[in-house]
Amino acid sequence: VSKIIVGVMGPGATASREQVEAARELGRLIAGEGWVLLTGGRAAGVMDAATHGARAAGGLTVGILPGEEAGGASEAVDILILTGMGQARNNVNVLSSRVVVACGMGAGTAAEVALALKARRPVVLLGAGPQAEALFERLGGELIQTAESPRHAIELVRGLLSEGEV
Amino acid sequence: VSKIIVGVMGPGATASREQVEAARELGRLIAGEGWVLLTGGRAAGVMDAATHGARAAGGLTVGILPGEEAGGASEAVDILILTGMGQARNNVNVLSSRVVVACGMGAGTAAEVALALKARRPVVLLGAGPQAEALFERLGGELIQTAESPRHAIELVRGLLSEGEV
Amino acid sequence: VSKIIVGVMGPGATASREQVEAARELGRLIAGEGWVLLTGGRAAGVMDAATHGARAAGGLTVGILPGEEAGGASEAVDILILTGMGQARNNVNVLSSRVVVACGMGAGTAAEVALALKARRPVVLLGAGPQAEALFERLGGELIQTAESPRHAIELVRGLLSEGEV
Amino acid sequence: VSKIIVGVMGPGATASREQVEAARELGRLIAGEGWVLLTGGRAAGVMDAATHGARAAGGLTVGILPGEEAGGASEAVDILILTGMGQARNNVNVLSSRVVVACGMGAGTAAEVALALKARRPVVLLGAGPQAEALFERLGGELIQTAESPRHAIELVRGLLSEGEV
Repeated sequence: VSKIIVGVMGPGATASREQVEAARELGRLIAGEGWVLLTGGRAAGVMDAATHGARAAGGLTVGILPGEEAGGASEAVDILILTGMGQARNNVNVLSSRVVVACGMGAGTAAEVALALKARRPVVLLGAGPQAEALFERLGGELIQTAESPRHAIELVRGLLSEGEV
Repeated sequence: VSKIIVGVMGPGATASREQVEAARELGRLIAGEGWVLLTGGRAAGVMDAATHGARAAGGLTVGILPGEEAGGASEAVDILILTGMGQARNNVNVLSSRVVVACGMGAGTAAEVALALKARRPVVLLGAGPQAEALFERLGGELIQTAESPRHAIELVRGLLSEGEV
Repeated sequence: VSKIIVGVMGPGATASREQVEAARELGRLIAGEGWVLLTGGRAAGVMDAATHGARAAGGLTVGILPGEEAGGASEAVDILILTGMGQARNNVNVLSSRVVVACGMGAGTAAEVALALKARRPVVLLGAGPQAEALFERLGGELIQTAESPRHAIELVRGLLSEGEV
Repeated sequence: VSKIIVGVMGPGATASREQVEAARELGRLIAGEGWVLLTGGRAAGVMDAATHGARAAGGLTVGILPGEEAGGASEAVDILILTGMGQARNNVNVLSSRVVVACGMGAGTAAEVALALKARRPVVLLGAGPQAEALFERLGGELIQTAESPRHAIELVRGLLSEGEV
């Protein structure tokens, strides 16, 4: 059977320093659990930080790029998937993740959370802000949980995986 | 040059009666302006009502289906595009629309609004609810406007198109 | 019910003068039958010629572009669908066509014929060359027919549509 | 930098015993070179055999599935990417592969070879048959090479990679 993939989604160039630090910690913890990290693959913001965090901790990293060529990919991606499908690759990101962790919130992140709910993938929000929490809790019900720290997010993912439902 | 396409997005089977009526009115008004109506194409909720409204008013209707076959399409779709790409077709919906009108709000609608913002397409929200308005105004800035009725939504679309920016 | 869409696929910038003339004739004849013409939408080669031929004959034209913006589209496209999914849009082209007519043969055309066979859409080859005819007849069996002229191709399409199987 | 991914494409349920054996050998040899194997991911034919071959030799395996759920995946896939985009996922397969090895030839394989040529990815044909060789050599020029055995195919891939062009 295939490895457990956990996705970390979040802002690229507009990510705050706090979001970048949380993403790096998420990557580190995901690798520590023996899970594979999946991100949108670009060398920017949350994607890049989570990928570097996971690799530094000895984990395996997957990046799902929007473009047709490898340019712009995070240096720390092990398995680079080139989709050539632009933002529609967000749907590949969430379908391929057993659980999606959203770290921060931008337009792309919102698309990924919404697509995850359509695909019935559970989502853990971290630092999403009150508007996103309110909307996605209304739309997603029990598929949505909110974490207060990277460590808390990982505990929630562990709980979801141990339920054997995802 | 190609015809002006205006997209109407919204809940399918879970649409309320009020949303269905607003969607039918939106379709009718879009056809009256001479624009082409584009929806997600299924015979359900907002998609179906907007499509029937546009056809009844003599307009041309486009449906972008998630599946590979025509089953489940609205009877009132003139041009049926079969994408076979599931929810990733939401990105085709918004890319192909000069302006997106979101009528009501579900997980699929939220994905479409968020993807529209990523693609820099303007969005008019109608009956989205306060959480969605708060989130998408924060994420989209001037790309987001809120309408109070179908007629108001069409006025906002007309304004956006006459600015010549979309 | 939706309109009958017939796809015309073929080389872009590398199309020969003969292929371009055949494509224009195909477009003209498709419009004359009352069918909607669908192409890959770009202002080049077979796509562009078929689209101009159909519009000149008063037909409705659909273009499925690979990119996210309208630049590069044929001037004669009425309904412009922007997929943003690159060459994967070839699958949308064939899924949306009741019958696919391949006019000439390039790498993109070969991908479209092969994807049509996977999706069980019938294909009419026109000027494909002996290698393509040999391969696709082997792979496609009864789904593949070969035409000797644009007019013959249209007769074959008419036959396929009247069988009520497509 | 990311790992070197080599794709093996070929028939599913219709694969011959000879193709299945060649695919298993290809997988084994790809793993032996330290490359990552990528296939269409399903538990059938060439995809399944190559994946089992690579895993048995200690390699890392990636499967790019057409569907939205993991059902039907090869048991030997390590990294399972769920695209939900049907046959359009063939474009992801070839974009993500530094070199594509086609083992046998079916409609899906032909689509992948043609898409690889569009994306300027080199292709090694193994057991493709004379019609496919003739067509793709005409369409692909120097991007197409023909191998006489799995071992020969791997030598050709090694040559392509050492040229530093892919």
